[in-house]
Amino acid sequence: MFNRDLQELIDDKKSRLCVGLDPAPQGMRKNYTTDKRILDFCLEIVEETSEHAVLYKPNLQYIMPLSRREMVELNKKIHENDALSILDLKLSDIGSTNKASLYWIKKMGFDSFTYSPFPGNIIETGKNARSYDLGVFVLTLMSNPEARYFMKSKIDGKIAYEFISERINEIDGNAVIGATCEREDLLRISSILRGDRFVLVPGIGVQKGRMDILKIFKNTVVNVGRSIIYSERPEEEAEEYKEKIKKFTS
Amino acid sequence: MFNRDLQELIDDKKSRLCVGLDPAPQGMRKNYTTDKRILDFCLEIVEETSEHAVLYKPNLQYIMPLSRREMVELNKKIHENDALSILDLKLSDIGSTNKASLYWIKKMGFDSFTYSPFPGNIIETGKNARSYDLGVFVLTLMSNPEARYFMKSKIDGKIAYEFISERINEIDGNAVIGATCEREDLLRISSILRGDRFVLVPGIGVQKGRMDILKIFKNTVVNVGRSIIYSERPEEEAEEYKEKIKKFTS
Repeated sequence: MFNRDLQELIDDKKSRLCVGLDPAPQGMRKNYTTDKRILDFCLEIVEETSEHAVLYKPNLQYIMPLSRREMVELNKKIHENDALSILDLKLSDIGSTNKASLYWIKKMGFDSFTYSPFPGNIIETGKNARSYDLGVFVLTLMSNPEARYFMKSKIDGKIAYEFISERINEIDGNAVIGATCEREDLLRISSILRGDRFVLVPGIGVQKGRMDILKIFKNTVVNVGRSIIYSERPEEEAEEYKEKIKKFTS
Repeated sequence: MFNRDLQELIDDKKSRLCVGLDPAPQGMRKNYTTDKRILDFCLEIVEETSEHAVLYKPNLQYIMPLSRREMVELNKKIHENDALSILDLKLSDIGSTNKASLYWIKKMGFDSFTYSPFPGNIIETGKNARSYDLGVFVLTLMSNPEARYFMKSKIDGKIAYEFISERINEIDGNAVIGATCEREDLLRISSILRGDRFVLVPGIGVQKGRMDILKIFKNTVVNVGRSIIYSERPEEEAEEYKEKIKKFTS
């Protein structure tokens, strides 16, 4: 069970740090990766930071060129270093396509995935996740200003993120909530979302989100990407974030 | 320019057929594919059906195990057979992740992609698509009943699909609209969406959607997946669909 395993790792490592594996392609950063280098880049980051991280979140948009064999290798490395993985693909499919996706996610060795509720089929996705024994993180309120259009729209008289939170409770899922969101919205979500659900929090690093999100939700894991993976010293940076997070969560 | 190239192919081949390449993994169908067989399965379908199809739409959830090299090979085959490709990944990312995705989509030889507007950044995605010279198909109203939650929610006083359609016009994009949707909704969308935008229509094959969608929107391409790719005679089936579609569009 993903959520139980994650809780054990958090207790053992005394860390709530998730490292976002987003190796930039050519033209995007000074030290970019090529398709041949993507796997090596990720393996090195895992090797260097795993003392301080419980989760690794490769984004499929960055690692798309990897073959199945390479994805398996990445997850093997993550597991050998006592951590779990989230495939960040923001799955937005239904029916048999949804199932095919989870089939491959599992085969490649990932432990959980991110899901976008845009198609509405949150309950279906929860059932599929359970049948493949995968954890699920549902996008609830993203960190960009335009997230308000859909995530704060009205569905059957409710704010969309309330509608999503209720269904996360129903499927025993987890939420993704950006640290840059407004306090009022965070409080509304926390009044609905069950306290035992994990909240994955992006937006703390480069985006300078609010740290008080870690007080509002008790059961957080904090994703930091660029600030760690493009640092000169990823290990030290990971340790610093681990400690910084600890101050707000204990 | 993707839209111009697609129009030329439609005129040349006298077809509006898009073939959905969704090779089912183990446990999902009797004649499933393994990861080693995914590429061969897709190449064979392209070979057999390309006289009748202008577009191929591999869904990333089914072809996830393919390496970059294999994706390049698939697109090469599609182009050699005078057709274009859509990577159906329902991209739901923002900022640099959105760009990284299009970088790889282009590198792998795809001509266009599907995009989910859940993060709200339709204009940004349109700009990125143009800078990578890729066509974009924006999910506007999906075919499953639960699509209503988000796609018919209210955004700033508008129905969400109206909000999406206006932005598709603004970015010179295209729409994805399911053939199983209600006539009233289709008419509302068609009153907003510019007539020169392509509408990709799933739901005609196995899902038995309404053919009159092809009368409501003038500029359609019709996706058929399982009914063709799992037929005993994919070529004949593709030809039949091509002709059936022609009856409703001419």
